[in-house]
Amino acid sequence: MSKRKPASVPPQQGRRGFIRNSLLGGLAALTAGRFGTAEAAGKALVVPAWSHQLGPGVVTNPYGKPSIFEKHVVRRFLPWIRPTREASISFAPLQDLHGIITPNGLFYERHHAGVPPIDPAEHLLVIHGLVKQPMKFTLQDLLRYPSVSRIHFIECAGNGAMEQHGALNNGLQFTHGMLSSAEWTGVPLKRLLNEVGIRSGAKWLLAEGADAAALARSFPIDKALDDALIAYAQNGEMLRPEQGYPLRLVLPGWEGVANVKWLRRLELGTRPWDMREETSTYTQLLPTGKARQFTFIQEAKSVITSPCPERPMPGKGVFMVEGLAWSGEGKVKRVDVSFDGGRNWQQARLKGPALDKSLTRFEIEWTWNGKQALLQSRVIDETGYVQPTYEQLRKVRGTNSMYHNNAIHTWMVHPGGEVENVQLG
Amino acid sequence: MSKRKPASVPPQQGRRGFIRNSLLGGLAALTAGRFGTAEAAGKALVVPAWSHQLGPGVVTNPYGKPSIFEKHVVRRFLPWIRPTREASISFAPLQDLHGIITPNGLFYERHHAGVPPIDPAEHLLVIHGLVKQPMKFTLQDLLRYPSVSRIHFIECAGNGAMEQHGALNNGLQFTHGMLSSAEWTGVPLKRLLNEVGIRSGAKWLLAEGADAAALARSFPIDKALDDALIAYAQNGEMLRPEQGYPLRLVLPGWEGVANVKWLRRLELGTRPWDMREETSTYTQLLPTGKARQFTFIQEAKSVITSPCPERPMPGKGVFMVEGLAWSGEGKVKRVDVSFDGGRNWQQARLKGPALDKSLTRFEIEWTWNGKQALLQSRVIDETGYVQPTYEQLRKVRGTNSMYHNNAIHTWMVHPGGEVENVQLG
Repeated sequence: MSKRKPASVPPQQGRRGFIRNSLLGGLAALTAGRFGTAEAAGKALVVPAWSHQLGPGVVTNPYGKPSIFEKHVVRRFLPWIRPTREASISFAPLQDLHGIITPNGLFYERHHAGVPPIDPAEHLLVIHGLVKQPMKFTLQDLLRYPSVSRIHFIECAGNGAMEQHGALNNGLQFTHGMLSSAEWTGVPLKRLLNEVGIRSGAKWLLAEGADAAALARSFPIDKALDDALIAYAQNGEMLRPEQGYPLRLVLPGWEGVANVKWLRRLELGTRPWDMREETSTYTQLLPTGKARQFTFIQEAKSVITSPCPERPMPGKGVFMVEGLAWSGEGKVKRVDVSFDGGRNWQQARLKGPALDKSLTRFEIEWTWNGKQALLQSRVIDETGYVQPTYEQLRKVRGTNSMYHNNAIHTWMVHPGGEVENVQLG
Repeated sequence: MSKRKPASVPPQQGRRGFIRNSLLGGLAALTAGRFGTAEAAGKALVVPAWSHQLGPGVVTNPYGKPSIFEKHVVRRFLPWIRPTREASISFAPLQDLHGIITPNGLFYERHHAGVPPIDPAEHLLVIHGLVKQPMKFTLQDLLRYPSVSRIHFIECAGNGAMEQHGALNNGLQFTHGMLSSAEWTGVPLKRLLNEVGIRSGAKWLLAEGADAAALARSFPIDKALDDALIAYAQNGEMLRPEQGYPLRLVLPGWEGVANVKWLRRLELGTRPWDMREETSTYTQLLPTGKARQFTFIQEAKSVITSPCPERPMPGKGVFMVEGLAWSGEGKVKRVDVSFDGGRNWQQARLKGPALDKSLTRFEIEWTWNGKQALLQSRVIDETGYVQPTYEQLRKVRGTNSMYHNNAIHTWMVHPGGEVENVQLG
C-alpha cells in the first residue's frame, strides 16, 4: 500500500451521522470538519508542498526557538506605567499559553533596577545575623545539597492594580499577565538554616538582591522553616537572568517581590527591617488611615483565559470556556463560572492535578446564543476561602488599595463576539 | 539601618560548631562555607561591582534567553552517527538539567527528513479509513475541543543503542540524551475518534507526518482509546518545530518514533500497515532469527546523572548522588543505587511526585572514600518490573538488538574523581 495515496473515503453520511455527532458534545457542528464529498476528502489528503522539501536538520538551533509563526507570543510592557524600563514590568501572554508551565522565555518580568550581569562563579550567598555560624555559599556549594523540585506560580502583588483603580486594560495580557509558573529546583532554606544554626530570638529574615536597587524584603522565620527554597533552576535549566540568575528566594504562594531575585544575603534578626519595598511601596492604605503591611499571601484568584479580548468568540454555539485558578494558601478546590454576571454559577471541570500553590486550569462547555453575556469565574481553595467580588474587596480595603487585587473579573461578550474588560459592582 | 552596610558577624565558633555542623548530614565540612574570621565575613558582604550598575530593563528580550554563562548547555550531535543532519539525532544535555521538565529549547531531536516548514493556517489533520464519517481538523478546530495537559517523557527507542553494541560514549549526554520531558497539552485522541465514529473491524491506526519522509507508524486502537493525545502545546507554548509543530501524536510511554510529529493523517484499518519504520528499522533481530516487531513500550530505566563523565566527583567525602528514573508502563515505585557494581543496593529517595509515564528524580547521599567505585541505579516500576542487567537483557534478546536498551548503566569513579562509562556483565 502506498503511503502517499489517499485511501477511499466514503461520502458524508447524511442526517443520521449529523445527529449522532451533534449529540457527542455538539462540537462537530462547529468544526465543520466533515467532508461534503469523497472528492473533498481526497483533496484534503493531497501531500502539501512543504512535505516535498528536506527541512533543516538537527542542531540547526543548538538551543531551540519557537516557530516563526508564533512571533506574536511575547512579553509586552506598557510604556506609560513607569518612567524607565529598568524599573518596570513586562506581562506574560496568558492568552497564548496552555497547561500550568510558563516557558522561561515568556515568564513575566518585574525589575527595580534592571537585570544585574552576575558572574555565577563570583556570586555568593551569605547567611548571617542571629546565627551560630555565619556562612557563605557559592552556587557550586548549593548544587551539592539535597534539592527539591516543585511547580509553583509567582504573581506580582500589583497584578490587577490598574483594574482596581478603574483603569481598564482591554487585554488579558495586561489585566493578569504579572503571573507565571515554573518547576523550581533548589535547596530548602530550612536545610541551610540548620547548617548555620538559628540563635534564639531570631524571628525574621532579611533577603537582599544583588541588583542596583539592592531590593530587600523582610519575612518571618516560619516561612523560612516551611516551604521556602533557595532556587537555582526553573523548568529544568538554570534560572533565567530576568528571574534572578543564579539564585532566587522562592516563597511559594507569596507576593512576587518577596521572592527576592539575584539573592546575595539573608540576615536573621528579631524584627522586620522596614525596607523601602515594605513601607513606601507594597503596603496598602486602608479607609481608617492605617496601612496594611507585610501582606505576603496571594489569596485565591481566577480568570477566564478563553474567550478574552485577544481571543474573541468565533461565533454562536458550543464553546469551551477555559481559565486559570490559583491560591497562595494551597490547592484549588473548585472553580465556578457564571455567564450572567454572577447571578447563576456552574461548576467547572479542573484539569490535571491541582498542585499546592500552583496554577490550575479549568474548563466548562458553554452554548452561546449570540447575545451579550457577562463571563466570570470564582475559585474556592482548600481552606474554604472564596474569591471575592470588587464590592466585597472594597468594603474591607476601601479604594486606596493598589496591591492584592484578587477580585472576580468580568469579560463582556458582545453580540459580534468581541470581548471587553468591564467591571461590575 | 543601612541596607548596604554589612552587619556585625561573629567569628568562627571553633570545634563545637564544627562538630555540630558535621553531624547535620556532613555537608558543612565539604562546602567550606564557614568564615575563618569576622573580617572574612565582612569581605563576603562587600557589594559586588555588578550591583553598582543599572542592568538591562524589561523586554530587552521579548522572548527571553538563558544567561550567557550557560552557553555550554546545548543539544549536541555526533557527526559520525548519520550521513546527514536532516536524518539524524541531537542529544539533550541531561548532565545540566534539573527537575522533570526539559526546557523546549533543549528537547532532543530525531528527524528522518528534517523539519518541515509548516504554515499552521494551512495544516490539516485528516482522520479517515474505517470510520463512519471521515473528517478534517485545522489547528483552530482542535483548539476548540476539550483539552488535557499532562507531563510525560519521550525517549527514542535507540537511546543507548551504541552502548548496547559496546561503543561506549564517555558522556551522559550521548549515552542517555535521547530522552526529554514536557507538559503536553492537546485533545485526547479518543474524543476525536468519537467524533468520526469507529467502524467495526477497526483494530489499528496509521499515523503519518507531513515531513519529507512521510514518516508513518501503525499502532493498535487500544492505545488510541486509552491515553493517546493529539498535542499542540508543550511546556505552555505551541509545539516547537523540532517537536512536530503544529500537531504531534503523543503515545505516552511508547518509543519516540511512534509519537509521530507534524501529524497530518490518521487512518483506521484492520491490521498494521508494515511501513518502513516498523519493518526495516525499529524492529529487533532475535537469536532465533525472528524479529521483534511493534515493541512500543519504553520499559523501566534509570541513570545516575551526577556524578557522570561531565560532572566528576569534586573530592572525597559526602556527595549527593542524583539521577533520573522512568517507565513507559506507569509510575516509578522505587530506585536502588549500588556503589560496588551491583553487589549491594541501597534505596534512594524519590523526589517530588512520581507521575504516570513521567521522569522521576532520585537522590541518595554517598560518602566517597576516594577509591575506585562502580555506581549503578536500578528502578522498579509500579507493575513490579525490575530494570535488567546487560546479562539478563542479552539472555533474552541476543546481541543483534539495537533498540530498547534499558539495561542497568555503570559509571566507574576513578580515584582522581573522573567518571568513566564502563559496561559490566
